[in-house]
Amino acid sequence: MLFDFTYYNPTKIYFGKNSLDNLSGELANYGKNVLLVYGKASVKKNGIYDKVMTVLESAGKNVTELSGIKSNPTYTQMLEGARLVRENDIDLILAVGGGSVIDCSKGISAAAYCEGDPWEKYWINEEPVTHKVVPVGSVLTMAGTGSEMNGGSVITNEEKMLKKGRVFGTNLYPKFSVLNPEFTYTVPKYQMASGIFDIFSHLMEQYFSGEDDNTSDYLIEGVMESLVNSARTAMKDPQNYEARSNIMWCATVALNTITGVSKSQDWEVHMIEHQVGAYTDCAHGAGLAVVSVPYYKYIYKYGLDRFVRFAKKIWEVDISSMSKEDAALAGIDALAEFIKEIELPSTLRELGTTEEMLPKIANSTALGGGYKQLSVKDVLEILKTAY
Amino acid sequence: MLFDFTYYNPTKIYFGKNSLDNLSGELANYGKNVLLVYGKASVKKNGIYDKVMTVLESAGKNVTELSGIKSNPTYTQMLEGARLVRENDIDLILAVGGGSVIDCSKGISAAAYCEGDPWEKYWINEEPVTHKVVPVGSVLTMAGTGSEMNGGSVITNEEKMLKKGRVFGTNLYPKFSVLNPEFTYTVPKYQMASGIFDIFSHLMEQYFSGEDDNTSDYLIEGVMESLVNSARTAMKDPQNYEARSNIMWCATVALNTITGVSKSQDWEVHMIEHQVGAYTDCAHGAGLAVVSVPYYKYIYKYGLDRFVRFAKKIWEVDISSMSKEDAALAGIDALAEFIKEIELPSTLRELGTTEEMLPKIANSTALGGGYKQLSVKDVLEILKTAY
Repeated sequence: MLFDFTYYNPTKIYFGKNSLDNLSGELANYGKNVLLVYGKASVKKNGIYDKVMTVLESAGKNVTELSGIKSNPTYTQMLEGARLVRENDIDLILAVGGGSVIDCSKGISAAAYCEGDPWEKYWINEEPVTHKVVPVGSVLTMAGTGSEMNGGSVITNEEKMLKKGRVFGTNLYPKFSVLNPEFTYTVPKYQMASGIFDIFSHLMEQYFSGEDDNTSDYLIEGVMESLVNSARTAMKDPQNYEARSNIMWCATVALNTITGVSKSQDWEVHMIEHQVGAYTDCAHGAGLAVVSVPYYKYIYKYGLDRFVRFAKKIWEVDISSMSKEDAALAGIDALAEFIKEIELPSTLRELGTTEEMLPKIANSTALGGGYKQLSVKDVLEILKTAY
Repeated sequence: MLFDFTYYNPTKIYFGKNSLDNLSGELANYGKNVLLVYGKASVKKNGIYDKVMTVLESAGKNVTELSGIKSNPTYTQMLEGARLVRENDIDLILAVGGGSVIDCSKGISAAAYCEGDPWEKYWINEEPVTHKVVPVGSVLTMAGTGSEMNGGSVITNEEKMLKKGRVFGTNLYPKFSVLNPEFTYTVPKYQMASGIFDIFSHLMEQYFSGEDDNTSDYLIEGVMESLVNSARTAMKDPQNYEARSNIMWCATVALNTITGVSKSQDWEVHMIEHQVGAYTDCAHGAGLAVVSVPYYKYIYKYGLDRFVRFAKKIWEVDISSMSKEDAALAGIDALAEFIKEIELPSTLRELGTTEEMLPKIANSTALGGGYKQLSVKDVLEILKTAY
């Protein structure tokens, strides 16, 4: 059943090979002072930094730079960005990178004019941001998180050993995002696969929740099918534009909230992974891949029909002569097979987790769940199976 | 392949049983003078008019009314609305009704401060609207056109015997739309079915076009499946909230442009139906139902693989032992069967078309096409088969 919801997503997307051509027009909407946020050396090596800088210079902008944003962006980096915003009277934060860089940029925007402790207010207490924020725009270089068209901001507080996501309101959505699939070509294969699984996990987190049949379920299945299809092509031929453009757009659609309306959703795989990530700094999608199969094997009995539907519709398992139980498990096995196919790990050990970390991870995981509400003990069981 | 596109849809949707509760908050964003646009007596009979008026009065608005908007809204009515906007210095146009009322309200907004002839400028020459427009909001009472979340405005110019659609830019999208599925319960069954087929046709117009496999195709299939499923339930049990809410949301998603990005699209069935509508004033969806099967039988050979996919994925035709030709035709037959199932007509005669009208309809139809570019002769052939 479709329960009451509000849907509003005012981010403007420019998609395609020539999408960067729209940047100068967008820049005209903002003042002179731009904070350029990016990650490691890769955007300099692949030429994207130079392309963006050329546009910024032609537009006569004063550019302040914040570089070195980590794949799990840290609270310290975020506070440093907030300081730069204040000191340079920044008019626009331009994120050039993947979800980490965009997540960090939203955090910078929220923190810059915050009175009090942003971590407590915005990540722990999840207060709405009502003071002045600085507009964020993005040039995306990696497909996965969907941060280019939503309010999500996952930040790692190193001091507290906590990786915590916050979904901000539309005032912190990127005003615009430039999505050129060719900009993702230089992403290493492992990172590409990690992004693909991040997208797939976003879809599963929405799909595996308790409502009856609704339109969102069908939309999710559509995106899942398209993603699996294009992932297979991209693994064989990473520079296949059709596949890479579909993957990029799947990432956006999977988490711009259109597929999730009126779904209570789960997100426990993400909660567990966040703490695996806090302890190991692993690639987010790889962490999700490791956690997913043990998690779904642990909870599938509580949402049996939906797991049967998953097997039939997404993996085309011939379930005609199977029990529901077997059909559901066959679907999860097909998921495990897909993880192998895109060459991601299947154990926590491969991510650098040690046995001593397991209880610490379990104890610090935010408890929730979809078909089944989890306890610390449940999480520990799942981690042990995943180990 | 995903070719370059811009995606931007800033309409805010309030969906669900309690969605009207959000109206007063929205009204606070606009000035005192409201033009209330609605159709026939039905919104007065079913109490929606009273509910909306109560909110408007509590908000202290000065309400000017424009009622009697026809199911094919006329250019004359639209100009009358534009006059009311100017004379009453209207701050917000509130459309309460189905797509006709919302389409007309956008037209009123575009025409109100237009210098020159709005028909020539905006419907014939499709110029962008760059002067002042009056914000439009909507309370939807019928699912079908998707006008609640896009820039579409189909107006019938009675003098010229032309029914013509125009897709305006985002400045004429509704700022907000209130979608309460229960508000559609009093729609007569025939109108409900007509709306359902309108939605399905929007999806087919996007789906049956020449591109390779892309994410949009999968999204369209998802919405099609959900719609067919819920349509079957709603035909048996029109007050089934789950079915009616899915249908209402399918209508919005089917034409809020998310399913159509990077698709060249077809829309020739709509072009033909528009002229059938101009001559017969038939229900839009019923006209589409009559035109669709003959149209697709006329063009399927030019997009054979897509019609095979349609048969397999939407209608679950077992195509394993069929030729592509037979599989494609089986899909179109399944579509014809669905039209019967939702009790819509299958001949132009049933809509009141006479034989003498056929060449006039063909001659006045805008020529385009998806897999095949049509000539007047082609359109006439299709009309004869549909007759």
